[in-house]
Amino acid sequence: MTNHAFYMDLALQNAQAMKGQTDPNPLVGSVIVNDNRIVGIGAHMKAGEPHAEIHALSMAGDKAKGATIYVTLEPCSHHGRTGPCAEAIVKAGIQTVVIATLDPNPVVSGRGVKILEDAGIGVIVGVEEEASRKMNEVFNKFIVENKPFVTMKSGITLDGKIASHTGHSKWITSEDARLDVHHLRNEHMAILVGVNTVIADNPELTTRIPNGRNPLRVVLDSTLKIPLESKLVTDKLADTWIFTSANYNEEKKVALEKLGISVFHTTAPKHVDPVEVVTILGEKSISSLLIEGGGTINAAFLENQLIDKAIIYIAPKLIGGKHAPSFMAGTGIESMDDAVELEDTDIVKIGKDFKFVGYPVYKRGIME
Amino acid sequence: MTNHAFYMDLALQNAQAMKGQTDPNPLVGSVIVNDNRIVGIGAHMKAGEPHAEIHALSMAGDKAKGATIYVTLEPCSHHGRTGPCAEAIVKAGIQTVVIATLDPNPVVSGRGVKILEDAGIGVIVGVEEEASRKMNEVFNKFIVENKPFVTMKSGITLDGKIASHTGHSKWITSEDARLDVHHLRNEHMAILVGVNTVIADNPELTTRIPNGRNPLRVVLDSTLKIPLESKLVTDKLADTWIFTSANYNEEKKVALEKLGISVFHTTAPKHVDPVEVVTILGEKSISSLLIEGGGTINAAFLENQLIDKAIIYIAPKLIGGKHAPSFMAGTGIESMDDAVELEDTDIVKIGKDFKFVGYPVYKRGIME
Repeated sequence: MTNHAFYMDLALQNAQAMKGQTDPNPLVGSVIVNDNRIVGIGAHMKAGEPHAEIHALSMAGDKAKGATIYVTLEPCSHHGRTGPCAEAIVKAGIQTVVIATLDPNPVVSGRGVKILEDAGIGVIVGVEEEASRKMNEVFNKFIVENKPFVTMKSGITLDGKIASHTGHSKWITSEDARLDVHHLRNEHMAILVGVNTVIADNPELTTRIPNGRNPLRVVLDSTLKIPLESKLVTDKLADTWIFTSANYNEEKKVALEKLGISVFHTTAPKHVDPVEVVTILGEKSISSLLIEGGGTINAAFLENQLIDKAIIYIAPKLIGGKHAPSFMAGTGIESMDDAVELEDTDIVKIGKDFKFVGYPVYKRGIME
Repeated sequence: MTNHAFYMDLALQNAQAMKGQTDPNPLVGSVIVNDNRIVGIGAHMKAGEPHAEIHALSMAGDKAKGATIYVTLEPCSHHGRTGPCAEAIVKAGIQTVVIATLDPNPVVSGRGVKILEDAGIGVIVGVEEEASRKMNEVFNKFIVENKPFVTMKSGITLDGKIASHTGHSKWITSEDARLDVHHLRNEHMAILVGVNTVIADNPELTTRIPNGRNPLRVVLDSTLKIPLESKLVTDKLADTWIFTSANYNEEKKVALEKLGISVFHTTAPKHVDPVEVVTILGEKSISSLLIEGGGTINAAFLENQLIDKAIIYIAPKLIGGKHAPSFMAGTGIESMDDAVELEDTDIVKIGKDFKFVGYPVYKRGIME
């Protein structure tokens, strides 16, 4: 590992430690090194508070002069609460700036670097770039597209099924994997299911870990058939938003709204259009969405190329059943050449199960 | 790692290196240590040639006196071509014998140890036992049950499918995974498919690696509908055995036999009974069977608790399709409590894909 990577990793670790407390800002860490000694560390800790570089510069004091600063994200160029960080770096007499990734927002990307270079400072970009990009994958998408980063989660048997042929599914994965799902929920602003899951399981969709934050609960329900006595409607444990098609039942909508439920209608005539759902959620500042749907919901999001990340818990179990459902339904592709490949894949053991993570790569319009 | 484990690992490595050349004998390695120095190493290399301990003792010569011998399998007590190894160990003046596993054959298990202990030699059993047992998993089953060790292999998408809804399946897994399958074929005495696979793909089922051995090809074909022009019937690249139900077509059987194909009929009236197939293969000295079937064949073997090991190549691809087939069909279980769990699971990356290995644990009669 080069020295650059070593110091950047420390900056990444400090940034990562603030996960969940910087929203809607990204995670950023910084390290200042003078004469081979670390003289300052910093991280962004809370929206409205100083950026990572400002904390590190303040810790370094005079020792910032002639030093190298490592920062996981391009220093900002805008006059926010703590002024442009790029200017603060110039003022502090920093000699070299090492940056993991440029600002993801194309409107301002590169502006921070320009300020630094115009001041005669050496700038290196791209050290541990992938790790930094991944750490802020949600922020990076939302800031550019104003749409939530969508993660599809499923728990399946080794033979690819999410329930037995009779519909029994409790439990496919072990307790350890299910606990991991609650951490996933804790990290997401919203969780989405189809109305059939609500009818079948009457779930709470809450985060059952100490100090867990309950995500907003989103239900796709084309005809507003959700039972008024569902926990999602009555339990008040978190907000519930229902998305319906153009042909919704006005009476049921009024009844739901009286119970404090928000109802959004998309323009599609029959089924809820997932593209519209994601657009509306983005407009409502929902930056991250966890899909815990069945095969039909998952396929609808895949067909519309809306899944950014897939997390699949694979239980080492065989249950058989030609008619036992898999987590991806719909019509599907015809030729293997049109399969949606996932890249940047990883698999780790969680208790008895395996947790797969990957990022779908959409080549072109592949499904219809 | 203890010294015992260190030396036993060396013995295991030497044993493992002979994989494929000791049939029908098991893999066995041995190390002799005197005064903290290795004075002899040995492995069983070929049926009819000396056992591992004899090679090691001969290398050690006088230095075997007072030494410790490590052997991955209990020394034999029978008068074979190289005499009982247990007696040779006694004669050589060995002081301590460290054994990984006892002989798997209950008829002779423990007899070697008894000879050693009766001669006043210290015996330690169980060092690296699991690794030794696994190394000879095929032999261990066959010697006790006279039935082949059955490995089910499948290549699936992340959404658990073995083909698109139109039946397209070339290719699900990457070249690296497919090459690994040819190594699997090379290690197996027989490979089994259903007749529908023969009709759909007209496969050769050969081992396409340098110096690869082609396995015996076994086809389950209840009604003898296999086309006479199939490669398996005509190509002579390896023997082909066809198993049929009680209601086979005598004329077709004669035609197949004229072409050099062996036809076995099981007693089941409608479908070939996989239990009978495995029994007959065992009687014909087939010790290892690789199943490369589709969902129906796989489910029939699972339902009859015949699968000893599952190897699943998982391609990080999504293809969707409610009607796209999975590798396990049949009726399947009803309640998740009846799922067949796999233990001793492992997953490794092979090229772009993941290779899962696990051993099904059958609790009781779970499927019907």
